Amino acid sequence: MTDLASVDALWRAANYLSVGQIYLLDNPLLREPLRPEHVKPRLLGHWGTSPGLNFCLAHLDRVIRERDQDMIYIMGPGHGGPAAVANAWLEGTYSEVYPYVSQDEEGMRRLFRQFSFPGGIPSHVAPETPGSIHEGGELGYSLSHAYGAAFDNPDLVVACVVGDGEAETGPLATGWHSNKFVDPTRDGVVLPILHLNGYKIAGPTVLARIPERDLLRLLEGYGHRPHVVAGDDPAEMHQAMAATLDTVFDQIAAIKAGARDPWPMIVLRSPKGWTGPREVDGLPVEGTWRSHQVPLARVRDDPAHLEQLEQWMRSYRPGELFDATGAPVPQVRAAAPAGQRRMSANPHANGGELLRPLTLPDFTSYAADVKAPAAATTEPTRSLGRFLRDVITANPDTFRLMGPDETDSNRLSAVFETTSRVWAAAIEPTDTGLAPHGRVMEILSEHTCQGWLEGYLLTGRHGLLNSYEAFIHIVDSMFNQHAKWLETTRKIPWRRPVASLNYLLSSHVWRQDHNGFTHQDPGFLDVVVNKKSTVVRVYLPPDTNTLLSVADHCLRSRDYVNVVVAGKQPVLDLMTMDEAIVHCTRGLGILPWASTDEGAEPDVVLACAGDVPTLETLAAADLLRRHIPDLKVRVVNVVDLMRLQPAAEHPHGLTDEAYDALFTTGKPCVFNFHGYPWLIHRLTYRRAGHGNLHVRGYIEEGTTTTPFDMCMLNNIDRFHLVMDVIDRVPGLGERYGHLRQQMQDDRLRARAYTREHGEDPPQIRDWTWPHQPPV
Amino acid sequence: MTDLASVDALWRAANYLSVGQIYLLDNPLLREPLRPEHVKPRLLGHWGTSPGLNFCLAHLDRVIRERDQDMIYIMGPGHGGPAAVANAWLEGTYSEVYPYVSQDEEGMRRLFRQFSFPGGIPSHVAPETPGSIHEGGELGYSLSHAYGAAFDNPDLVVACVVGDGEAETGPLATGWHSNKFVDPTRDGVVLPILHLNGYKIAGPTVLARIPERDLLRLLEGYGHRPHVVAGDDPAEMHQAMAATLDTVFDQIAAIKAGARDPWPMIVLRSPKGWTGPREVDGLPVEGTWRSHQVPLARVRDDPAHLEQLEQWMRSYRPGELFDATGAPVPQVRAAAPAGQRRMSANPHANGGELLRPLTLPDFTSYAADVKAPAAATTEPTRSLGRFLRDVITANPDTFRLMGPDETDSNRLSAVFETTSRVWAAAIEPTDTGLAPHGRVMEILSEHTCQGWLEGYLLTGRHGLLNSYEAFIHIVDSMFNQHAKWLETTRKIPWRRPVASLNYLLSSHVWRQDHNGFTHQDPGFLDVVVNKKSTVVRVYLPPDTNTLLSVADHCLRSRDYVNVVVAGKQPVLDLMTMDEAIVHCTRGLGILPWASTDEGAEPDVVLACAGDVPTLETLAAADLLRRHIPDLKVRVVNVVDLMRLQPAAEHPHGLTDEAYDALFTTGKPCVFNFHGYPWLIHRLTYRRAGHGNLHVRGYIEEGTTTTPFDMCMLNNIDRFHLVMDVIDRVPGLGERYGHLRQQMQDDRLRARAYTREHGEDPPQIRDWTWPHQPPV
Repeated sequence: MTDLASVDALWRAANYLSVGQIYLLDNPLLREPLRPEHVKPRLLGHWGTSPGLNFCLAHLDRVIRERDQDMIYIMGPGHGGPAAVANAWLEGTYSEVYPYVSQDEEGMRRLFRQFSFPGGIPSHVAPETPGSIHEGGELGYSLSHAYGAAFDNPDLVVACVVGDGEAETGPLATGWHSNKFVDPTRDGVVLPILHLNGYKIAGPTVLARIPERDLLRLLEGYGHRPHVVAGDDPAEMHQAMAATLDTVFDQIAAIKAGARDPWPMIVLRSPKGWTGPREVDGLPVEGTWRSHQVPLARVRDDPAHLEQLEQWMRSYRPGELFDATGAPVPQVRAAAPAGQRRMSANPHANGGELLRPLTLPDFTSYAADVKAPAAATTEPTRSLGRFLRDVITANPDTFRLMGPDETDSNRLSAVFETTSRVWAAAIEPTDTGLAPHGRVMEILSEHTCQGWLEGYLLTGRHGLLNSYEAFIHIVDSMFNQHAKWLETTRKIPWRRPVASLNYLLSSHVWRQDHNGFTHQDPGFLDVVVNKKSTVVRVYLPPDTNTLLSVADHCLRSRDYVNVVVAGKQPVLDLMTMDEAIVHCTRGLGILPWASTDEGAEPDVVLACAGDVPTLETLAAADLLRRHIPDLKVRVVNVVDLMRLQPAAEHPHGLTDEAYDALFTTGKPCVFNFHGYPWLIHRLTYRRAGHGNLHVRGYIEEGTTTTPFDMCMLNNIDRFHLVMDVIDRVPGLGERYGHLRQQMQDDRLRARAYTREHGEDPPQIRDWTWPHQPPV
Repeated sequence: MTDLASVDALWRAANYLSVGQIYLLDNPLLREPLRPEHVKPRLLGHWGTSPGLNFCLAHLDRVIRERDQDMIYIMGPGHGGPAAVANAWLEGTYSEVYPYVSQDEEGMRRLFRQFSFPGGIPSHVAPETPGSIHEGGELGYSLSHAYGAAFDNPDLVVACVVGDGEAETGPLATGWHSNKFVDPTRDGVVLPILHLNGYKIAGPTVLARIPERDLLRLLEGYGHRPHVVAGDDPAEMHQAMAATLDTVFDQIAAIKAGARDPWPMIVLRSPKGWTGPREVDGLPVEGTWRSHQVPLARVRDDPAHLEQLEQWMRSYRPGELFDATGAPVPQVRAAAPAGQRRMSANPHANGGELLRPLTLPDFTSYAADVKAPAAATTEPTRSLGRFLRDVITANPDTFRLMGPDETDSNRLSAVFETTSRVWAAAIEPTDTGLAPHGRVMEILSEHTCQGWLEGYLLTGRHGLLNSYEAFIHIVDSMFNQHAKWLETTRKIPWRRPVASLNYLLSSHVWRQDHNGFTHQDPGFLDVVVNKKSTVVRVYLPPDTNTLLSVADHCLRSRDYVNVVVAGKQPVLDLMTMDEAIVHCTRGLGILPWASTDEGAEPDVVLACAGDVPTLETLAAADLLRRHIPDLKVRVVNVVDLMRLQPAAEHPHGLTDEAYDALFTTGKPCVFNFHGYPWLIHRLTYRRAGHGNLHVRGYIEEGTTTTPFDMCMLNNIDRFHLVMDVIDRVPGLGERYGHLRQQMQDDRLRARAYTREHGEDPPQIRDWTWPHQPPV
């Protein structure tokens, strides 16, 4: 601990640069007295959390240097963008990736000016910030991101600063339990630093205001050994923090060596806006919520504020920290690590640099053997489970399967032939398939699963999240933020592509036999398609072989969010594997065996997307060829939903010519869709034939009932589709009124049967495509 | 404790009825040996949690009777629908609200048959279940619902069973901190019962597998005094639970009398599937995850399973529990409370029965004084804050304002003139406006705010949740579930209407000066409009007076979810209060002073929805009247978004005639929208003029930048709108190529100014509608 003066110098330098970013347009080294024109007209940024973050980083840097420790940080209080940027600049990384912002006076001027400035950089820790895999903005995910980064990185320490505001969120509150999923020997270490600076935007925080005894019990209850560092005197705090970190890293080393102790963590209690103005206009600022954003707000107009800003900045003694050129002096440089040990340059924080492609088994070897289309059923996710089992075997350290306790329920159980559920808590004799190390991670928190997977992907690995379709809405906002991260990183050349975030949504809206209305919501797709077409992909494979083809494609892709909706119940096999590959490559196509248009212009198009709607569409096509044999019906199945969008809107979008060739420009099209019907209208409203498009889908009718009754409740059933065709094709209404009535009667009969017997009529339940041509 | 035999009888009766609901179609009293045809063909339901829930209810009933305690329950493990239904039937309430399911043998047969059966009732605790305000399905909200119910109900105890699966979710994990927001004297009491039955669907639960020392510290850290009741022997468990409840209610009484102790709670550790089959087919079932759903799965096919089911049901000794008619015997009836003390009949659980209209001040008295349209600005939410201040004053016990720490930030600060932020943790000298009792509830957890508000509304009170627009996505799934609850309760006659759930989304996508891309997401509206038109309403008031009118309307409404989007920044006042009332009543309308069509058919319609898009539309209209004086422009503002939908789709939907009269059927319409542009297409695709509709909106471009730069990034700015008009109105392209170029140049100039000065050009920043007619 001989070099605490250097640590202090690094801290002061970072604080100086943080204030400069928030306030200054010019005169970065204060070579002349501050004048109003040196100050930005719009003062935007968050000072309050920045000095505490700088304090943590400076001290962690000492540990990195002394122990040659591989370490990255996660900044939960990501509003403190100035801190992350300041440290990256002091470490030289910033100038390496953005040479325009050089490590000298002019570079410092640009560093200050660009911050939260039009054409510059965001005010938060952002994708643009070297060293970060965690965006500051929406709060709550720091711990789950940190654990995701640590899994399968046995030598890595992820220092995770948790803000006491963030600590009030649900995802963070359960994120602490991630330590029950860490294998000390094969995973890295997360070091949480709970930063109690006491205030949110306008009020105090819960964890800063409960008795310290309660706080420590809470953290011990979470399975940690907390160490408190509290105070406001910098010299004393440096001593305390350094000593505590030495203790903590010794404890970590002991656990890594086999000690069965709770994981250490730090509680850092320091003033909000520490080292900033104590009072402004007679009101206390340092140590209160008033320092959350910009403590001195009228610097350009009020000479007293300007004077106070200059005093504040000079209090860091910039002349000792930067040399005549504006570069950090050797003492400051030496306080930061070098090369890839710099947290701003650690490759784990730019995971694409470490990414290796998965070794993928040949997905065609898991194919369902399809002798004739729609003649027999298999369970798509069960086959996918076998594929994933072998993906896991072939990639023992770089692939994880996450889910809220639904791996078995979603019939991916084959994975347990090769791996275990991760479980580092107690294991009892009746348990099966639990181990401290494994590839399947189940916790009943979609937030934690998603956060783990994001952290895992952003540090260069691969994975898949499986969830009930309805409850993936729980992480709508996390999806949004991850998509935004990808949208941004695709424009940043030094960010290397990472593996896509893959969702498998099973247990979907149409098959909630056990559950009912709360479990019936296909609206995640509507959320997904709002994000930029450069990053989102949606697939609805209708059978086993198409699911396998889609899954293989998704696991190979980069920088996307892939959403795959596939039921876990038995579905009719429609295609051989060769046909499935062609169909998925095209993304949509005609099912010729189910169509009666014989290559000519049809009278009506029956389109479908999703396994259950496809089944009903096929059954309707069969009814139509039997009852209206001269009607030319074309059946089109859509796997890749983005194909429906115009080519100008999405890279997968069909040209108008190709779209019109499939859907026609003037014939009625009855589209049977898995989700809310409006989504199809939204994707196709610019198409020539849109006026003839009639979409069936989930219209928010449901309960605990049979599969076919669910279809009838929402009018996506075979009988209703036939009625739709009769209503839509000119001339049929008059000729086939009796058939329409019969369909209506068949609906009523089916409902009556179901209500009497509690299950669907056998001829509906067991329906397959009749390969004997209809008489 | 003389009557534990009665408690046990009530428990056995409820267990018997729970099993019967899952399994039986007929022979409910086992008057003859079970035959396969007595058993349902599809066995659907969740046994595992049911006996524990029945145990809790039977014991709470004893406390209610002995202490004449006002009490409701929240069943976190809502999969245990059979338990809630069984108890409601035993209490007689079920037959009162559903006379068809009478309290006799035939009623019991119907009770069994209808459960999870087509045309029957859902398998979870559902809106259909008397006594419940908490749907079982999506997990995580039991504690926040319970606290919401308890606020301002000083004599009420809300017994909240928390499942150990649910306890892993984020919302639940932070929900424990709700106790820092309870005033012992003026609020009711939440009694959490953490039910550790050890397993989720397929694996163990975290809280059941950490050392008990850690568990107790965690709960103490949350601010509770935990009491453990653990075991599997019914007689011992009855003694333990009864003694513990006596202790707990004595402790509650002491706290209510002024003792400053932690709130008591119970940890109930009992086997999953308690009293069910110990083993099935040689595998352990009771006490393992195998009893999660249906422990005996092949009852109709396997005579051994059938025999085991009959033994299981007879183990409850139904002959002692039900009389010859099938009604509960007096001992069982006496074990349950009577009248409104029955938890299934407590009016708090059917809050509409207790609902009184708010006393609302005259909203017109908060009006902005508008001398001329668009000539001056006010801050809409600041005026709303004054209105809400007086709503609070007039309704001191029945209205609460929730939000994640943004009441000040959203400029509703006037409410603090009359009330405080609720804060029952430590208060320090520098704090302002904190008190144990108040009307403003702030915790940095949207989940908790939403859960509190739902619980508060469902027990018959009123409220409003304000949030950043982007982060309301955090509660997408909670909104979905609440909307589904309302969709269902509207069809249940005995459920009385409750106050609407009101969202105020401020700090919206267009004004994130401090924050940037992560804070820019208007997609909540897309999620909202997927729900049934009977329950969702979306308002985009463009100025102060329209916001006041909308707010008054929302606070008077029932059984809706109202979403109001309104910025907190100064906006131009467009309408006098009289005009605003007319405009909001119509939901949309022409702004005649900004239009040049003079009542005739216009050449182009400029439509707008949202404050910032409206400002840009007005500025574009001004540019057009100056530069293309012969162009007939109609400006239409939309406040009530649902007006755009066809009348057949939404009760607010305009007729086609009315829509066409406003938007024309053949003229180009450039629609400047607050949110993602596709939403407008989705709402209007059936309208005659849809082919001529061109929508501008947020296209996922953003960062920390100036307000006008944000508009330009997404092409909703005034200059781009003029370009859109030139491109769309036939003939203008040739005549006004120079104007189009000038608009393009003006965009570039504005951007250059912004990048140099860090703020928008003054003539744009300070623009108002020029009331001098253009020369």
